[in-house]
Amino acid sequence: MKKIAISIGDINGIGLEIALKSHKKISKLCKPIYFVDDEILSAASELLKIEIPRGFKNKNIKKYLSKDLQDSIKNKDSIINPAKITKESGEYSFISLKCALDSVIKKQNDALLTLPIHKKAWNLADRNYVGHTDFLSHYFNDDGIMMLGCEKMFVALFSDHIPLSKVASKISFKNLCNFFERFYKSFQFEKALVLGLNPHAGDGGVLGNEDKIINKAIEYTNKKLNKNIFFGAISPDIAFSKENRKKYKVFIAMYHDQGLIPLKALYFEESINITLGLPILRSSVDHGVAFDIAYKNKASTKSYLNALDFLINLRN
Amino acid sequence: MKKIAISIGDINGIGLEIALKSHKKISKLCKPIYFVDDEILSAASELLKIEIPRGFKNKNIKKYLSKDLQDSIKNKDSIINPAKITKESGEYSFISLKCALDSVIKKQNDALLTLPIHKKAWNLADRNYVGHTDFLSHYFNDDGIMMLGCEKMFVALFSDHIPLSKVASKISFKNLCNFFERFYKSFQFEKALVLGLNPHAGDGGVLGNEDKIINKAIEYTNKKLNKNIFFGAISPDIAFSKENRKKYKVFIAMYHDQGLIPLKALYFEESINITLGLPILRSSVDHGVAFDIAYKNKASTKSYLNALDFLINLRN
Repeated sequence: MKKIAISIGDINGIGLEIALKSHKKISKLCKPIYFVDDEILSAASELLKIEIPRGFKNKNIKKYLSKDLQDSIKNKDSIINPAKITKESGEYSFISLKCALDSVIKKQNDALLTLPIHKKAWNLADRNYVGHTDFLSHYFNDDGIMMLGCEKMFVALFSDHIPLSKVASKISFKNLCNFFERFYKSFQFEKALVLGLNPHAGDGGVLGNEDKIINKAIEYTNKKLNKNIFFGAISPDIAFSKENRKKYKVFIAMYHDQGLIPLKALYFEESINITLGLPILRSSVDHGVAFDIAYKNKASTKSYLNALDFLINLRN
Repeated sequence: MKKIAISIGDINGIGLEIALKSHKKISKLCKPIYFVDDEILSAASELLKIEIPRGFKNKNIKKYLSKDLQDSIKNKDSIINPAKITKESGEYSFISLKCALDSVIKKQNDALLTLPIHKKAWNLADRNYVGHTDFLSHYFNDDGIMMLGCEKMFVALFSDHIPLSKVASKISFKNLCNFFERFYKSFQFEKALVLGLNPHAGDGGVLGNEDKIINKAIEYTNKKLNKNIFFGAISPDIAFSKENRKKYKVFIAMYHDQGLIPLKALYFEESINITLGLPILRSSVDHGVAFDIAYKNKASTKSYLNALDFLINLRN
């Protein structure tokens, strides 16, 4: 069975509930190791009135925390503050991620599963990353490829957290070829449908010229791989029609909302978030800390189980 | 009953089939007047083996055609060329539109229903418009508002057929306020959800500043109208989630694909295309000439019937 390192996410959100509730199920599929301290685990268990499941293997990380935070953990009545954005929870979720990541880099574990963090809590703790993918890209000094989706439909993003006005200038033959090839090498698929950038994929140039560059990059990459893997560039508005979703399971969007709008319109609850193209494999739920239902025993484990399933079944 | 002027669209496509097949049904709901000549009607009827329905009232337009085209119409065996892009069909569909439009302007008819034209055929005939909306905007020297959708979900486009790289620069307080107000005045709705421009609606400015301008325009317009009509700016990726689609039926997208990707992923076949904000009201099917099935008796009339339904039921 694969060994999965699980970073616990923001302790004031729904991460611990998901971990505790799902353990029995997932321990039949993999060997999970949770990066969280005994004190926090037991505080969460009391708050949620969920017993810590048998065989719930956690790794204490307190020695990597700041002195102040080490002290506050000792008081288990105050360490968890449901639905609060705090510097402490920000530092904690960051260190949990860092330790879980280290264990995968050192091959103690096979892959990384991350529970949701709160970006503003990270900011308060002076960890200024836009999110997991951003942190991992900085850590490895290489762009992670952000892919989201579920079995029915995966969408990889050629560009992700940048203003819309900056998207067009990212489109270059070199960037695209590089992206296509890295994506293909990091994830097994038979074919992928590539979206154009402009309305009607540029309509022969009348509505923009970037789509022609995308076409050239598709042609070049297919030739290089000696297989027809990439198709398109298709007019974005019809890319996700029922008919195309029957033909393709993997899509490449040029920007964040081009891919995430249809994914969330169609498969919000089931979707997961995957980082590809890095030395380690990471997946995650595709939702946030859900402060509105934190510590209310209402969190869905669907996306979490799908995220784990992906790590276990990917043949790489 | 409302009088509806119907432009016949590209005679080599599926327009005539749709008109002939639907007449009986729609003549119970409105008084349709078709802008097409006897000769073409009879040629289509023969090709399709569909009899011209009783009470099918058409208006001859041949006197507005070029001399050459007037001559070729006389030979009814050669005037229709299924699935061919020709200068003749381009001129014909343009004149049909022009005559149907004139009749609405002169109040002889109440609204305009357009069947699909082929843009390249228009080009061959030297009518260089991107489509119906573009032509109408030029004709009235005022921007038409493009709205697409069906009863379950309508999407109005703040910008439409422009390259993606030009979208951000269109976002200005003045343009937005003007658009919101014109849209509200031309279409009855209780509330509309407005999308941001950038990922996560800019995330407080980190991913772009246009979303703040959108927020200000929403606030200003609501105040001016003295009602809360416009909501947002919402993070685009979650705008069309199931939950939001329950709460809102009308959405405002900042650009073409932001609105049309989810619409076509969810409701491709039912959707119609509406031009608002002009002195006349026009709706249309949301599909093209469908040359692949032209004159094969396979065309669906769903979108056409929805488009008509919209014109009949709009209270304005």
